[in-house]
Order: sequence, then structure tokens, then C-alpha cells
Amino acid sequence: MRTAIYPGSFDPLTNGHLDVLERAAKLFDRVIVAVALSESKNPFFTLEERVALMKPAVARMKNVKAGVFDGLLVEYAHKQKAQAIVRGLRAVSDFEFEFQMALMNRKLAKDIETIFMMPKETYTFISSRIVKEIARMGGDVSPFVPPHVAAALKKKLKTAQ
Amino acid sequence: MRTAIYPGSFDPLTNGHLDVLERAAKLFDRVIVAVALSESKNPFFTLEERVALMKPAVARMKNVKAGVFDGLLVEYAHKQKAQAIVRGLRAVSDFEFEFQMALMNRKLAKDIETIFMMPKETYTFISSRIVKEIARMGGDVSPFVPPHVAAALKKKLKTAQ
Amino acid sequence: MRTAIYPGSFDPLTNGHLDVLERAAKLFDRVIVAVALSESKNPFFTLEERVALMKPAVARMKNVKAGVFDGLLVEYAHKQKAQAIVRGLRAVSDFEFEFQMALMNRKLAKDIETIFMMPKETYTFISSRIVKEIARMGGDVSPFVPPHVAAALKKKLKTAQ
Amino acid sequence: MRTAIYPGSFDPLTNGHLDVLERAAKLFDRVIVAVALSESKNPFFTLEERVALMKPAVARMKNVKAGVFDGLLVEYAHKQKAQAIVRGLRAVSDFEFEFQMALMNRKLAKDIETIFMMPKETYTFISSRIVKEIARMGGDVSPFVPPHVAAALKKKLKTAQ
Amino acid sequence: MRTAIYPGSFDPLTNGHLDVLERAAKLFDRVIVAVALSESKNPFFTLEERVALMKPAVARMKNVKAGVFDGLLVEYAHKQKAQAIVRGLRAVSDFEFEFQMALMNRKLAKDIETIFMMPKETYTFISSRIVKEIARMGGDVSPFVPPHVAAALKKKLKTAQ
Amino acid sequence: MRTAIYPGSFDPLTNGHLDVLERAAKLFDRVIVAVALSESKNPFFTLEERVALMKPAVARMKNVKAGVFDGLLVEYAHKQKAQAIVRGLRAVSDFEFEFQMALMNRKLAKDIETIFMMPKETYTFISSRIVKEIARMGGDVSPFVPPHVAAALKKKLKTAQ
Repeated sequence: MRTAIYPGSFDPLTNGHLDVLERAAKLFDRVIVAVALSESKNPFFTLEERVALMKPAVARMKNVKAGVFDGLLVEYAHKQKAQAIVRGLRAVSDFEFEFQMALMNRKLAKDIETIFMMPKETYTFISSRIVKEIARMGGDVSPFVPPHVAAALKKKLKTAQ
Repeated sequence: MRTAIYPGSFDPLTNGHLDVLERAAKLFDRVIVAVALSESKNPFFTLEERVALMKPAVARMKNVKAGVFDGLLVEYAHKQKAQAIVRGLRAVSDFEFEFQMALMNRKLAKDIETIFMMPKETYTFISSRIVKEIARMGGDVSPFVPPHVAAALKKKLKTAQ
Repeated sequence: MRTAIYPGSFDPLTNGHLDVLERAAKLFDRVIVAVALSESKNPFFTLEERVALMKPAVARMKNVKAGVFDGLLVEYAHKQKAQAIVRGLRAVSDFEFEFQMALMNRKLAKDIETIFMMPKETYTFISSRIVKEIARMGGDVSPFVPPHVAAALKKKLKTAQ
Repeated sequence: MRTAIYPGSFDPLTNGHLDVLERAAKLFDRVIVAVALSESKNPFFTLEERVALMKPAVARMKNVKAGVFDGLLVEYAHKQKAQAIVRGLRAVSDFEFEFQMALMNRKLAKDIETIFMMPKETYTFISSRIVKEIARMGGDVSPFVPPHVAAALKKKLKTAQ
Repeated sequence: MRTAIYPGSFDPLTNGHLDVLERAAKLFDRVIVAVALSESKNPFFTLEERVALMKPAVARMKNVKAGVFDGLLVEYAHKQKAQAIVRGLRAVSDFEFEFQMALMNRKLAKDIETIFMMPKETYTFISSRIVKEIARMGGDVSPFVPPHVAAALKKKLKTAQ
Repeated sequence: MRTAIYPGSFDPLTNGHLDVLERAAKLFDRVIVAVALSESKNPFFTLEERVALMKPAVARMKNVKAGVFDGLLVEYAHKQKAQAIVRGLRAVSDFEFEFQMALMNRKLAKDIETIFMMPKETYTFISSRIVKEIARMGGDVSPFVPPHVAAALKKKLKTAQ
């Protein structure tokens, strides 16, 4: 059985993330979408909220489950008996940082391979950061995130005022 | 009549910005240089100061006026009956973020087109950030910004001590 | 009246080219799509064929006309009393060559400005070269070029055998 | 069973290619390294030679076999019942062309996913083109290709004189 | 006598930095590795600590000495009678910012040339930021930094808890 | 004594090349500008012509001399007792190929270091290829090359007709 980890902060989950996840789910027996505790110091959504938003989104994908990790990604991958880390690449600017991280992870754990996949080209311009910016300015984010994420963004922003 | 918006935080206005603005002013009937309220949380100059520095700089360009916007750029463009957003491109690293923003804006407003223009090559290395850094270290910024901006930088830095 | 030139070899015209052309036609009073004689030494279609394929494609755009140029682009632009050259940018790799050409053209003619526009993101991966490759291998190019261009490709390839 | 295609012209096979191939072989049940007939008009080694150099190199990898393809890659992938195409990425400049090809292949065949993998960092600078150049100038290529490829290069160059 | 400055924040010094430094030391009569006071507002190590970590690392290189600078780099270079500034380039993303800084420095001081050198390819993925992240997560940083730096990282992290 | 090689095909020599050469001449005791025999199969100027155009251009630089090389660059560098290879970098697209070549050269000769220098920013857009294109189309190349090169281009183009 081959297992892949799809790590990220998912703050929040976007349609671009889900697109990569679905593609990965076709190539591996099991995919664990791993929500990172540590990536940002002031996340918009708490870790618990980000996991709670992830779960319904992946419920329909049978071989995908949501997990949480803190610390070194490769240690988490070892614990999950994963052979691969999946990363989505949208743009050249992603490329270099992703490659550095992948080389570093390879140095730390030789048995885990990072593979890169492309989201659908219409998702190229979607990022969690841009989605949050549009939401903050009162724009409509429904084309970019699942409905329950759009609702959560709206609610969180109201509470914040 | 064709109107273009040239948006930015202009913190502060540089000779590179003015160069792009002059080029845009030749291609459109009206150009609105739109100072953004929101881009940075701790701007060096306040919004009022940034607008006040912009006004004398564009006074000599007949079809250019300075505006202020907060919120979604495309909504501001609609209010101003603009057909185009103008962005200056200096380097490959600008390119991708600019393209993502442009694609996002197109998604939000199909009738507004983003166009990219190049500043004079001698302005390639000028950015508001580098200008502020040099000013802070006591360097001479007069080749990179208009005289009244250089004076404002000096005054602001003295006050800050 | 503002006139823009949209130059290229158009060997052959793709849907990506037409998308940029339509966007440019909204920002200028007149757009001349200028088929270049000289760009490639062994074009797939002759200059006459390329112009003949262009004409029906632009017939429905009222302020667009097809032209032909040989020699320096900026001289052609001067003859057409154009103020701008329009270029489509799809990818970072286009960016640098396009910028070098634009800077060179600015050196040769200060009164002509190059502006860059983005095709629809679904056209990102279309290029004349890739279209020809797929056609040569017997693939279906109908999603990437207008019907009359697809037909011309098929006919030309049969004749070549 | 999951099958991946690793396509290329392999003119000639390098240690960088073999490194990617070994990594792919760990993630898929079966990997077909597919030598392309058509990529270059004047290959250094003929198709037969390139396949003959590939076979001993992959003999020790149990789930890898060498194949040959002509025409559309996605058609070959369908015939082989493959779910994935594997591509090695060494540098940013590879990235964009690879992405364009991957998007085009996705358009032509939705059920086949392209994944990108990184060779070992010490193979970053190795390409078939550079290997041939060094061989032509009498340099030692033994650190960059398997011994039987180094021998074949030497022999071919002698014959060519 | 030719002198070069190798500036940076060195927070902390990595094996990649030392590799560039050794290469520079072969090309110049004297190299001053200049630890910058100002680059980051919240450095992990204080300026004194960073200089203290640098000194033993460069002790074995006869024509290298450690210095400290605050303010404009070119003024420091003038004071040291340097002709060159040395910068390591690892990746395309470094490239543009480095070029902007180099052009700016050239504007501020025409007599000082910036040169770029490459670290060993196995150090491509090492950066001070990634080293600190791994250390924070309890990973082993000993392959990426000199032993005394690894020890200092461990000690500092314990104290911080 | 420190010697650097500045290699290239110089087909033809441009003001950008001379700018890099002058900068290198300040940092090394001796610089050999090495005209390559082999880089292009159909050079515009013959090797003899390219060397003849180089000689008067470097006559005024006392520590620069023109040389010719065929074969491996690092072997030529060894023969000249050089410690460094100088390359000009204008754009990101140069960067990767240059880095690959530099890594390869380092593999072939550990004692020779490649350093990268920037031409003046107004020379960013000048390349031998673009200069030849403009000359072919009858444009004025005098701002981009020394006068005797401009004359040689004109003469060669007349003869070719």
C-alpha cells in the first residue's frame, strides 16, 4: 500500500487545494491531508477550525483522511508509513522554495519522495492569502472555496469586528 | 473616453512610479493614480501624507488626477468608469504576483483589463522599500524620488527619532 | 485616435492570439494585427497563407484590421501612426525576451509604448509551436485554433506527405 | 496496478535520468521508460541505439521496462494503461515548458496525470546536451553517464571523424 | 592589494556561507566578512553572538577577517578600501533582489563592483531560515552548519523555553 | 598574479561585453577575453573577424588581451594559469544556463571559480543576436556596439547581398 502526505496550513482550504488532492488520490492508495500547526504565527483560522473545515471537504474521497502535524514533516510521514509528499505547484515563484524544502526533506529522510502536481489552470491564481484579502474587502469568494469555507470566512470576519 | 487606474500604496512615490504614470497618460484619456489605504499595516507615510505627496507630482500632467481607494480595486475602477488597470513591471519576481492579481481581478470584473508597462530601465532597481532603507541609513535618495518626497522623508525620519 | 499594433508571426493564429486581440480592441480606437514576414526562416504557412487565415478571424472585430510588415517593427508602427505595441504574456519565460525587445524598441522609437496583456488563463498553454506539433502527430487541435485554421493545418499536412 | 510513463529522447541517457527513474520506480507498480522517436530531427544516437543503451541500464530495476513511442504521448500512455507521466525537473527554465506540455496533455487526456520529481541535486547541471558537448571536446563524461554510455559516445565520435 | 566585503546577517552562519567565503578568499588578497547589524529586527542571535560564531569559523582562513557594519554597505566598503562586494547566489529567486541591491549600490558608489559566486550545489537548499526552522522542530542541523553553530542553536533554544 | 578568462563567441562584440570587461579588468591583474571557435555553427563573423574586431576594442585596457580558444574552456583556463572565469549576467533567463555551465566547469576543474558580474543597466537589453537582427533590418546599431563593429556589420551585410 502506498501512502502520500499532502501537507499545508490550509488557512483556509481552497478549491485549488481540493483539486490537487483529488488528483493525488488517484495515484496513491491512501492520501493524508496534513494540516500544519506551525506554519504561520497568526493564522486566520485556528488549527481546530482548519481541520474542521477540511473534514467535510474530503469526506467524499474514500482514500483520503485529514490529519494534523506539528514538528518535522518527514517524521510525521514516517509515522504514517508514507512514501511520498505531494505538493501543488502553481507558479515559478512556488517552485524554488518548494524545491529547497523538498531537497531538505530528502536530506532528512532518504526514503520519502516529494512529487509535484499541477492544479487545474483556472485555479492558478487562487491562494489562501488572496482569498482572505478578498473576503476582508467584502468581495465574493464563492468561486474560489467550497461553500462551507465561504460561510466560515464570513462568520469569522463578522465576529472580528 | 477611456480611463485607466494606476493603483499602489506609493509609500513613498518614486521616480519609477512617475515614469510609468507619464507613459500611461499618453495612452489613455484620463488616468487616476489611486493611493491604496489598505496595502500595508504600518505605512511609513499616512494615507493623507501619501496623497499630499502625490498631488504636486501629478499637477503638471493634465489628464492625471490623484484618488484614494479602500476595498476592492475593481469596485473602485467601476465607480470611476475605468476600462483598464495599469501596473508597472520591473522584474520577473513582480510578474507572477501581478499576474495572479490581474487574473483575480478579471474574475471579479470581466470588463476591466489589466495592462503592464515598463518603467525606464534606469529605474529598474528603485522600489519604495529600498528608497526608505537608504533614507533610514542616511543615504542620499535624491536621484530616486522627486525633491519634495526626499524632503518629506528627511523630515519624517528626524521626527521619528 | 489611438492606434495599437499587435505583431507576431501567427504561424498559425491561435485562440490565444484572438483573445489578446479582442482585449486590445477594447482599449484602443484601432488595432492593426501585423503579420511578420521575417520572424522564422521556415514558416509552416507562407506569409500569404498566414494573412489569409487572419482576415476572416478578425472580420467581426470592427476596429481591427490585418496588416503585413517586414523590417523594423517601430518603423511600421510609425507608418501606421500607432502609439502602442501590444504583446501577450503567458509565462515568465516570455517575459524577459519580451522586455528586452520592448526596451530595444523604446530605444529605437521613444514615442511608441509597449504594453503587455494576459490571455485568458485557459489559453496559457497554447502556442503556435505546440499546436503544430499536435497536428503533425494526428492530434485534434480544434479546441486551440479557429475551425478554418484547423482545416488549413490538416490540408497542409496532407499536401506535405 | 499503477503504471507511469517516463518519456524522453534520452540522447543519451544520463545519470540524472536514471536517478529520476529509480525514484519513480518506488512510487509506481510499473514504470515504462519511453524513448521518443520524434523529439529531435538529428539525434546523436539513432532510436535503436538509444533503446539499446537504455535496456542494460534498467535491467536491474524489476518494475521498469524500456519502450518506444512515436506520435502523441497520451495515446501511448493509454495503450500502456498508464495513469501517470513522470517528468524530472531540474531548473526553473524546465518548469514552464514542462507545465505547458502537462496542461496540454491534460487537455488531450483527462485521465492521465503528470507528476514532477527532482533528481539528486548533484545531477542538477547534467543534461544530454551538455554531456554531448563535453564528449565532443574530448572531456571526460564518466561522472555523468553510465560506463556503457560513455563508451558508446566515444565510439560514435571516432566513427564520425 | 584587492579587498572584498562579504556582507550578510549570518543568523546563523551556515556551511553554505563558509563555502562562498573560501572561494572568495582565493580570488582576493583580503576578504572581510561583514556581519550586518540591521538586516532583521528580531534576529535569533544578537549581533555579538553572530560575530562570536563567525570568528572561530574564519580563523583558519588567513586572509579573511570578521567585521561588523551598520548603515550603508558601500560606506563600510569605502572605509575598508574594498573594491568588491561578494554575494552568493543559490537560486533564481535570490537573483533579482540581489541584482536590484547591486545596481543600487553601484549608483551609490561607482568604484565598488558586486560579484556573484555559487556555493557548492549540495548547499543550494541551505539557508539560515531553514536551518532555524529545523532546529526549532528538534531536527538535526549538524550537516548544515559548523559544530559550534549547531551547539549554539541548541543552547539558545533551550534558554528560550 | 590573478588572471581571469572572459569567454564568449562575441559575434559581434557589443558595448555590453566591453562594459563587463572593463569591470573585470579592475578586479584582476590580467583578463583574457577568449573568443570561442565553436559556440555557433554558422557565426555571422568568422573567428578571425571576431578576433580582429576585439583587438582594437581592448587595446586601451592595459591588463586585457584577446585570445582564442577551441575545446574545453577549463583546459584553456589552465593553460593561461587563470583562477577565474567571468560571465556577465543580464537576466534571469541567462542565470540558469550560466549556473549549469559553471557547475559543470567546477566539476571538470575544481581550482577555477566562475564569477558573475552585471553590465550597466542600460545594456540589459543588448545582445549580439538582437544587434544582428536590427542591422539586418537596416536599423541603426551605433548606440549598441563600438563604431568599428557597426561599420563591419554594415559592410558584411552589403557583401552578403
